Amino acid sequence: METIETEFQRKLEVCYSPELFPTYFVKDDCVVVVIDIFRATSAICTAFDHGIKQIIPVATIEEAREYQAKGYVAAAERNGEIVEGFDLGNSPFSYMNPELKGKELVLSTTNGTQAIEKAKAANTIIIGSFLNLDAVCRFLEKQNKNVILLCAGWKGRYNLEDSLFAGAVVNQLKNNPVFTGLSDSSIAADQMYDLAKGDLGEFLKNSSHRRRLAKLNLEKDIDYCLQLNQIDLVPIFNGTGLTIN
Amino acid sequence: METIETEFQRKLEVCYSPELFPTYFVKDDCVVVVIDIFRATSAICTAFDHGIKQIIPVATIEEAREYQAKGYVAAAERNGEIVEGFDLGNSPFSYMNPELKGKELVLSTTNGTQAIEKAKAANTIIIGSFLNLDAVCRFLEKQNKNVILLCAGWKGRYNLEDSLFAGAVVNQLKNNPVFTGLSDSSIAADQMYDLAKGDLGEFLKNSSHRRRLAKLNLEKDIDYCLQLNQIDLVPIFNGTGLTIN
Repeated sequence: METIETEFQRKLEVCYSPELFPTYFVKDDCVVVVIDIFRATSAICTAFDHGIKQIIPVATIEEAREYQAKGYVAAAERNGEIVEGFDLGNSPFSYMNPELKGKELVLSTTNGTQAIEKAKAANTIIIGSFLNLDAVCRFLEKQNKNVILLCAGWKGRYNLEDSLFAGAVVNQLKNNPVFTGLSDSSIAADQMYDLAKGDLGEFLKNSSHRRRLAKLNLEKDIDYCLQLNQIDLVPIFNGTGLTIN
Repeated sequence: METIETEFQRKLEVCYSPELFPTYFVKDDCVVVVIDIFRATSAICTAFDHGIKQIIPVATIEEAREYQAKGYVAAAERNGEIVEGFDLGNSPFSYMNPELKGKELVLSTTNGTQAIEKAKAANTIIIGSFLNLDAVCRFLEKQNKNVILLCAGWKGRYNLEDSLFAGAVVNQLKNNPVFTGLSDSSIAADQMYDLAKGDLGEFLKNSSHRRRLAKLNLEKDIDYCLQLNQIDLVPIFNGTGLTIN
């Protein structure tokens, strides 16, 4: 009823909040792209680009502490700051450390790892950021499955930067005949990306998360996270943790 | 933390789905504008413009039947069609009947009345549609309270037409110094309305609900619901039903 679907036509939908995931998720035969631009999914891509072996995303600080006790490198962020007692937060720059190469890491963040938790009902979960945009799009074209672009948002609310990245994916894939069934949320994200793509930073200058991070002196992180196609890999969830092939 | 708020500055937020309402609703001292353009809130405005006395919105068909048994005129719509055994659905044209003047009506619809149900935690709930856009904006300016523009969506999902109306309200109110704390969702809705306002029907031509209604031969309803400022009143919830002052 929602869209005309044939065997050769896949849905490309944007889900603007993890809270709405159950209304978009119909069957497990789909790919979910988890998006938390500022900064979890940008940090995850950066960590793999610098040689990390595996990242275990966990929803709670308690779970992160349990892994930490077992010897994992442990990262935890809440409200933009590193949680006390942890080695790392979610600034991408902290994952450029050569000492992390080959290591296994546990990660819990305000929004990003909560979104991964919700997405676990799907059989394929990947990590998307502007940094690996083209790699994500190539992956989705090869899979030929229904796609849900899952924005982590901010504590359940809509946010601009995650929506813009979702729009960037729709922008690249909408002319692929496999993805002709655009949902309303995909149409909106695509239109917004068209408006913003000339200068993402300028478009986001009044966004709530940008203002929040600017207060924490994280402008350098913001500029980094808005760069396109710096990283040519796709982190994928293997049932326990994220790895790259 | 979300926005810089002073006593003289009110939030103007768009909530894209009733499912997200709990994440936006902080305290009852706010005005919620319930929006279901195709077609519940357009029909409600039309009914009051034609002299209906009160409309009781109910979430379930069973509740609507109970009111019907007590002698109320009863309207129920699911998936775009009139539910069997009811007099009316949610086509605005069916509310132009002079026989309804002075009557009390019970109404249950797929999305609109569910959104009203969620909004009941707020102390002021009003009904918005393109038909009464200016009247809604004037009401909000006079109230000087935080505002949540609540899109009914489609079964919990984002939809374009409700988001566009929310954007139309933001477009009118954003330069009022009372509403300087725009949320990310308000910025997005405003930008999209700017893109669409030259021809709303054209912008919506690929939207899912428009396609759904077109299949049911409801193009006439669509054109009617996209007209601006035909009706100069604001239906308001009095605790039991909707009335106008």
